Amino acid sequence: MAMFVCMPAALRAAPEAIAAKLAQQIQESSLALEIATDLTTEIGPRLYGSENEKRAAEWAMKRFHEYGFDRVWSESFPVERGWIRGEEKASIVSPSPQNLVITALGGSVPTPPEGIEAEIAHFRFIEDLLAAPEGSLKGKIAVVTHPMEIGQYAKISGGIRSKGPSEAARRGAIAFLMRSAGTDSDRVAHTGATSYRDGIPRIPAAALSVPDAQQIDRLAERFKSIRIKLVLTPKEIGAVRSQNVIAEITGREKPEEIVLLGAHLDSWDLGTGAIDDGTGVGIVMAAGKLIGELPQAPKRTVRIVLFGAEEIGLVGGKYYADSRTDELKRHIVATEADAGQGPVQFMDIGVGNPLDPSISRIRKALEPLGIKPGRSKSSGGPDIGPMHSKGVPAFGLSMFTDDYFDLHHTPNDTIDKVEPERINQSAAAFVTVGYLAAELGGYYRASDVR
Amino acid sequence: MAMFVCMPAALRAAPEAIAAKLAQQIQESSLALEIATDLTTEIGPRLYGSENEKRAAEWAMKRFHEYGFDRVWSESFPVERGWIRGEEKASIVSPSPQNLVITALGGSVPTPPEGIEAEIAHFRFIEDLLAAPEGSLKGKIAVVTHPMEIGQYAKISGGIRSKGPSEAARRGAIAFLMRSAGTDSDRVAHTGATSYRDGIPRIPAAALSVPDAQQIDRLAERFKSIRIKLVLTPKEIGAVRSQNVIAEITGREKPEEIVLLGAHLDSWDLGTGAIDDGTGVGIVMAAGKLIGELPQAPKRTVRIVLFGAEEIGLVGGKYYADSRTDELKRHIVATEADAGQGPVQFMDIGVGNPLDPSISRIRKALEPLGIKPGRSKSSGGPDIGPMHSKGVPAFGLSMFTDDYFDLHHTPNDTIDKVEPERINQSAAAFVTVGYLAAELGGYYRASDVR
Repeated sequence: MAMFVCMPAALRAAPEAIAAKLAQQIQESSLALEIATDLTTEIGPRLYGSENEKRAAEWAMKRFHEYGFDRVWSESFPVERGWIRGEEKASIVSPSPQNLVITALGGSVPTPPEGIEAEIAHFRFIEDLLAAPEGSLKGKIAVVTHPMEIGQYAKISGGIRSKGPSEAARRGAIAFLMRSAGTDSDRVAHTGATSYRDGIPRIPAAALSVPDAQQIDRLAERFKSIRIKLVLTPKEIGAVRSQNVIAEITGREKPEEIVLLGAHLDSWDLGTGAIDDGTGVGIVMAAGKLIGELPQAPKRTVRIVLFGAEEIGLVGGKYYADSRTDELKRHIVATEADAGQGPVQFMDIGVGNPLDPSISRIRKALEPLGIKPGRSKSSGGPDIGPMHSKGVPAFGLSMFTDDYFDLHHTPNDTIDKVEPERINQSAAAFVTVGYLAAELGGYYRASDVR
Repeated sequence: MAMFVCMPAALRAAPEAIAAKLAQQIQESSLALEIATDLTTEIGPRLYGSENEKRAAEWAMKRFHEYGFDRVWSESFPVERGWIRGEEKASIVSPSPQNLVITALGGSVPTPPEGIEAEIAHFRFIEDLLAAPEGSLKGKIAVVTHPMEIGQYAKISGGIRSKGPSEAARRGAIAFLMRSAGTDSDRVAHTGATSYRDGIPRIPAAALSVPDAQQIDRLAERFKSIRIKLVLTPKEIGAVRSQNVIAEITGREKPEEIVLLGAHLDSWDLGTGAIDDGTGVGIVMAAGKLIGELPQAPKRTVRIVLFGAEEIGLVGGKYYADSRTDELKRHIVATEADAGQGPVQFMDIGVGNPLDPSISRIRKALEPLGIKPGRSKSSGGPDIGPMHSKGVPAFGLSMFTDDYFDLHHTPNDTIDKVEPERINQSAAAFVTVGYLAAELGGYYRASDVR
């Protein structure tokens, strides 16, 4: 009964019609939100290298099997510096005793168990700290209350969160506090990875909630000396392991050609990783499931990759790219959902050949979702970056991030913040792109892609 | 140079014109916000009986003196059960390990220092717990996730926060967790006083943030058994002392007749007591200051009272009412600002003679501020309640509380949440009412007021 051999032309719907049906189905079912809810409830937070991240990987593999994917596997890799959060407390000792809401930056070294107490050196802007001479912060806790404006996440996380502790230590500081790299005015602090430069003392580093940073600004206007007590007891636990979870729907004509839809399974530990990146996991798993349930698979293979250990430096994404050579060449395009719940606003492209006709067909198919053609530049998402820099073409489904920088990396990153209409539109975008790229194919490479 | 003796009629403005000037001045200066900012910054949180509450009282007396009030004094009183918050941690042990955001209810007893771990008995509604037979919760942590809808604060705080721990203990529970008595969807928990019934074991009691309560609801749908670990180490510290701070502008004709504007100086310890009740303190201090700076004082005395230990059961308000007898009869009217930043929407009246002509004049004077006549029922505010029940007439300047139940009693109760336009309108309302009541007078008592 090989019906497909002589399927009547009338039954062979246009790829766009099938994509539209998938988009409708994914929205009506709210499947992406259901998956994200299950993950964040049944597993909870998923710190890189943790037992919970491992449980999440097992959960995802089981779920992929239940959904009937053709191949499901995981690939394990080392993460150099395992780390677990400990106690974290801070308070103003004088002039006005009060608790401060803080959280350790990821990878921070601890204070002594009893904490440290010292006068602060207050800087409204990171530039002021950088202008301070070496030795000038000796014995002090450096506090940088540089505000993050909308659109400045990369600047603040890269310029202050990453480099701040070593810049303060180089000048003699014994600890580093920064205003959270987030836009929320709630009294929750925002974590994220820091890093230490070699040859400079590694000092404890934490983020203050935005209202706490503002409180210190006000105190600094009124009082000459402010003393803070800080207790941070995170632990470095040596090398740990993480894993990428991979599942495929085998292409019906060119199974060796791969369209990759990614998200990351790990999360920071303060919330339950709903916005970052439970929604992404829900979106790409739901997209894969529905594509897999079609009467016939698309021409090329659709591969869903749930990366591990993204938050500590794209470790899963780098491992994925570095451990493949020939296979990478068979990735015709890759994209990732890692910017919250959406909606998707633009389709950016990071390809060598932007004139491939499939691109305008895909962009046209996204129009009913309100998605506009975007920039001719994209690295596809954080975990796609490493493979993109090795030549894998990338699509960037650019999401509306109005609340993303309020929520991600904070205790507020919980599933109640996700609105069905928003995640459903994003899921519709990813299923459309995943299906059409795999069905239509496209030769996106060109000489200007390495 | 007794110029007032022969002041030309043209210089004697109508009371309403003076009140309008005061209202304009208080709004343009943003004085109420300035005071609230100073208090919450320079003192911070002000838990009843704490060193910070005492510092706040000293701060307020100094400020009243600087503002030139005629009399400034404080009255000290005992508070039976001093209490300080300790460590507070909770986590789901199984099925999905994750931290929970909680905070001890005020007055809670501690767990053992190492905490307790137990299966939970989950109740979606308090009625379900009340329907559980005695002994049925033996060895369990009772968790009530009853949601608070808008307008239900009194119901939830009275019915669940106050009575829940003893109702759970009576049925054998070893600890009590409730969904926060608040409407905020942030991951911050909401404290407030609980109370224990005599003859029933006193068990540790805490509030979960709303998203954490929702997480437990979802887990309870999916898993039969949920185990929670709870560590609470608050301390009862025996009897402590608090104080009411009082300042007066002596009336020019009938100094023995008192118009009382109140607020409370104490706060919960999680935030800095900005909305509850730093704004109220700012409003009534600013109103008093500007009235005191008039070329001539109003006919009757304006008394500003900053009550102590409100949060643990109106201790300052009760002491004020109970320690006065004749003087209470000379309070012609009292009102309190203790519902956040405003704006004031209605002027309610709790008087025996609602037809006193001054009431319609005051209500008319509030019209330009958008304030409408309200109900013929008011106890004047929490701390005014005890004196009102002894016969002191009350005005209730009823505030818009859209964000109040998101913020008060939580770490989010910080000054950044206060919007100048809102507190300024409230301050304008209180200065209008304070001045006009003292200038116009009024006989508000009648036989139906005790």
